[in-house]
Amino acid sequence: MTHEEARAAFPVLERYAYLNAGSVGPMAQATYNAMVAAGRAELGPRGGSEAFDRIIEARAALRDVLARLTGVDGERVALTTSTSEACRIVVTGLGLQPHDEVVTTDAEHFGLLGPLHASGAKVRVAKVRDRPPSEALATILAEVGPSTKLVALSHVLWLNGHAVPIEELHDWLSAPLLVDGAQSVGAIPVDAEPFDFYTVSGQKWLCGPTPTGGLYVREPENLRVATPSYFSQESYEPDGAFVPRDGAARFEQNWIPAAFVAGLDAAIALAPEWRFERAREITDLCRRRLVEAGYDVVTEPGHGTLVSWRWDGDTKEAVKSLYERDVVIRDLPGTDLLRASCGYWTNEDDIDRLVAGLSAL
Amino acid sequence: MTHEEARAAFPVLERYAYLNAGSVGPMAQATYNAMVAAGRAELGPRGGSEAFDRIIEARAALRDVLARLTGVDGERVALTTSTSEACRIVVTGLGLQPHDEVVTTDAEHFGLLGPLHASGAKVRVAKVRDRPPSEALATILAEVGPSTKLVALSHVLWLNGHAVPIEELHDWLSAPLLVDGAQSVGAIPVDAEPFDFYTVSGQKWLCGPTPTGGLYVREPENLRVATPSYFSQESYEPDGAFVPRDGAARFEQNWIPAAFVAGLDAAIALAPEWRFERAREITDLCRRRLVEAGYDVVTEPGHGTLVSWRWDGDTKEAVKSLYERDVVIRDLPGTDLLRASCGYWTNEDDIDRLVAGLSAL
Repeated sequence: MTHEEARAAFPVLERYAYLNAGSVGPMAQATYNAMVAAGRAELGPRGGSEAFDRIIEARAALRDVLARLTGVDGERVALTTSTSEACRIVVTGLGLQPHDEVVTTDAEHFGLLGPLHASGAKVRVAKVRDRPPSEALATILAEVGPSTKLVALSHVLWLNGHAVPIEELHDWLSAPLLVDGAQSVGAIPVDAEPFDFYTVSGQKWLCGPTPTGGLYVREPENLRVATPSYFSQESYEPDGAFVPRDGAARFEQNWIPAAFVAGLDAAIALAPEWRFERAREITDLCRRRLVEAGYDVVTEPGHGTLVSWRWDGDTKEAVKSLYERDVVIRDLPGTDLLRASCGYWTNEDDIDRLVAGLSAL
Repeated sequence: MTHEEARAAFPVLERYAYLNAGSVGPMAQATYNAMVAAGRAELGPRGGSEAFDRIIEARAALRDVLARLTGVDGERVALTTSTSEACRIVVTGLGLQPHDEVVTTDAEHFGLLGPLHASGAKVRVAKVRDRPPSEALATILAEVGPSTKLVALSHVLWLNGHAVPIEELHDWLSAPLLVDGAQSVGAIPVDAEPFDFYTVSGQKWLCGPTPTGGLYVREPENLRVATPSYFSQESYEPDGAFVPRDGAARFEQNWIPAAFVAGLDAAIALAPEWRFERAREITDLCRRRLVEAGYDVVTEPGHGTLVSWRWDGDTKEAVKSLYERDVVIRDLPGTDLLRASCGYWTNEDDIDRLVAGLSAL
């Protein structure tokens, strides 16, 4: 598949310099078509046993797809609606107490931070954001101590796109490690197998339906099912005591519409083999072009596929003005940063339009 | 709108005697069309600020629609993916302890029972299922004591269709009351206002997309946000401490696809004014016809819109054989019951086909 062919799969790219896959990726026509086709079944006997069996099978197949994508075993994957839901499942399942500590960074999404705070444990925040990424490991480890019951952070930080060296971090830790993969899976190569917990977002770099996602749990039997759903149980007693299903499927919280299963499946199948190299090249180009244009880029080269830079003035207004020129990026609430997301589908023209749009503001 | 017109809205009824709205309702062509139309926006700049603003507005409008439907104020409604999710939000938010007690019945869905068990509190089970519904109130109250921190049960029991006298129950209680409205909202008139918590299912009697739903919380400020999401906060600190959004919206867990918001909206708008009278009449007819045909019907007349009867033999097989005759009902795992769901769209021919199908088994 050529780059032009891969790009032609996404109708939005005909008009827009769409640089916001870090929020939600572009959707391919084929993904949309798969969703509409599968959704048509809703008009039939959707509460019939055939429809039910079909969905159960499709769910199992999708778990395997997500597993292959992250180098793990499908038995250890739960389908979720988002990385946020996946984070909630892990944090509530650990049953943290007020005397426990959890370690995170100062560059995390509220989808992770919120559940950490709600756990009641003391949240220790490693200040990696304004330091060079080479200091991230030491900065995080400095917060880890004997009361640490969980280290929870992103593989790629959503605010500045820096990749955390999670393999080395994992080697140093005895506490479990929850990795938020929202900005990594589909953007950079991921091998989730060694980690205790790894979350997947379907609607960002995988370009699937919103909301979709997954959670890898290395040892499903060792995490409590704190918020059970009908999908959690094999059998149950009148007081709710239950035998959990095998594997990570026990953590599944919601019915996933057939259209969404089909859509995510189709979206994942579309990505070309050269996705990661191309995304790497175009992200580095985007970074270089912004630096050359004189912007204070906070993202170092060679990390994820996000590029952030400081903006003097109202970031919300800047995003709006660019949108009027069909250039889609985002602001990052609570910061003075603007962020562009580069995917394998991004081309040089998209970057040119971003730089031209910024200089016109 | 005539009955024939109302019925013609649902393509599934052309072929099937579709009697399983208690699992998932029939979907109207107009609902499907609204979903496809709204879903088309996914092909555009779906991560752009316009798309985001549109969804935020649509969510607020949908909260108001669910509020009107249940006689409450939209500020006190949270959108959920299901009644099960709504139950989890309430039960985790109460922060129950092992010395606390919760009271439920022996005719509840695992979507409620599972979270009750996982709370760690002692679950006391009122045995209402095999007693006349006139004894339900006393049977439930007999389990309530000074350690009761929550009474959680269905308005209409999914196993036998009996309505619990929740108004009287509420008058007797000092503990908060969580009402699972999965089998009531859209099937019988509901005024949720007096209750502490009331859940709504979108995909059953409202005939909306799967999964959709809502949660009414009378005093949102008095329930902890135990599983916060990005939608929960107005602003937050680096350690995840946050200022919750106003009202019940703080409990929302997931992004709801634009197509689902539009679909549920369209589905709710379709129901005719005479929905409840007609559903009452046809349910009573269904019950009568099954009794006349000699079945041991466990549902008394004048309750919800479900009818259950005992079945000698494999209930799963019976459901399958009926499905082959285009009659859709369900078995109830762990019981010897079969269940038919009657909606305002059900006609006498559907009932005839059910009775004929059963007699042919």
